[in-house]
Amino acid sequence: MSVFDTLNYNNYAFRVYITWGGLLLIKLLFMAFLTSFQRIRKGAVENPEDVGVRSNMEIKKDEDVERVRRAHLNDLENIPAFLFAALMYIMADPHPIAAAWLIRIAVLARIGHTIVYAIYPIRQPARGICFFITLGITVFMIIWSMVIFFEI
Amino acid sequence: MSVFDTLNYNNYAFRVYITWGGLLLIKLLFMAFLTSFQRIRKGAVENPEDVGVRSNMEIKKDEDVERVRRAHLNDLENIPAFLFAALMYIMADPHPIAAAWLIRIAVLARIGHTIVYAIYPIRQPARGICFFITLGITVFMIIWSMVIFFEI
Amino acid sequence: MSVFDTLNYNNYAFRVYITWGGLLLIKLLFMAFLTSFQRIRKGAVENPEDVGVRSNMEIKKDEDVERVRRAHLNDLENIPAFLFAALMYIMADPHPIAAAWLIRIAVLARIGHTIVYAIYPIRQPARGICFFITLGITVFMIIWSMVIFFEI
Repeated sequence: MSVFDTLNYNNYAFRVYITWGGLLLIKLLFMAFLTSFQRIRKGAVENPEDVGVRSNMEIKKDEDVERVRRAHLNDLENIPAFLFAALMYIMADPHPIAAAWLIRIAVLARIGHTIVYAIYPIRQPARGICFFITLGITVFMIIWSMVIFFEI
Repeated sequence: MSVFDTLNYNNYAFRVYITWGGLLLIKLLFMAFLTSFQRIRKGAVENPEDVGVRSNMEIKKDEDVERVRRAHLNDLENIPAFLFAALMYIMADPHPIAAAWLIRIAVLARIGHTIVYAIYPIRQPARGICFFITLGITVFMIIWSMVIFFEI
Repeated sequence: MSVFDTLNYNNYAFRVYITWGGLLLIKLLFMAFLTSFQRIRKGAVENPEDVGVRSNMEIKKDEDVERVRRAHLNDLENIPAFLFAALMYIMADPHPIAAAWLIRIAVLARIGHTIVYAIYPIRQPARGICFFITLGITVFMIIWSMVIFFEI
């Protein structure tokens, strides 16, 4: 049996992975625009060659820009790991309905994380809950795959 | 039909993906050497245990080092996303010639981004153009894959 | 011949990749806990909404926290690249025993890197050696795959 019977157009879980994983990647890439938006709004850039792009730009740190940067960095720490984990998990041929819901919830929690961190900051534990939902699902998927394919 | 008829030695687009994707990964890893080179040239390190590696090193921030760090971070924000996007896109079985050119242009634009950001800084919009070419191709590939495999 | 005869439960190298790659992903995700632990121990946070989580928290930079952050960032620069490289390499159908040892050594060196950088800092060249072992294996895997699938 090839595991690639699972990475197949006919596999519902695989189609869900591409659709929601693609959405999560677009969300990740969108962070660059959110950073640019805040840089322009607050007039805070990092490179001398960017000063001239618009008037009243200067090289400085701004709290609203740094907040988006931290949210972006947190995405980099978690989103590629989730995309690898979910791919391994789908190769392990889980129940398609369970896999689909885990993927949907993990992606929605990550979108929630961005909203409460960088767009409309609210008090803890909102950010922590979003963070741990995606992290928990990611770790579950990795361990499931490791158990199925275990070879030390 | 298995999508893995597309991830195949006989698929021209897949071979182009491995060749150019591999080149882009090497470029990403090369950023660490560019950082080290600037740290040694400018004598600026971040960890106390690195101070003794060579003479006249000290713990400080240096603009040339920070510039390479920013270029590296921008790579981390975009290159893994591109590699996932291009893999999804190839699974969606696009026209091989179109896929090959999109991959080549995206990789070359990313190499251009590093040159105008970290090696030989020139004024905007050079860096912005390079950034948006790769980003645009990445988003196009993701949306194409999402449409082909759509399953909410 | 499909390269996906290699990404198969029956392929020893593929099972080793999932097991050790999964371990490396868990190590990467664990860095967030190490950061939190240091933030709580040293009372140093970055976001105003985190100040109230426990008493004697304040917004400041702390060297022990920043050290873990740098180790985490170094992971982001190297671990996704390694996971892509090893996947490409396995698709190129290398000798399974050689592939398994390269994967094991690369993962163990990366775990060693975290220990000597963020948990129990020791003097150079300990960190440099760990860094270059994983990097060397990653570059070897990429070049091997590029040679096998070469298509400019």
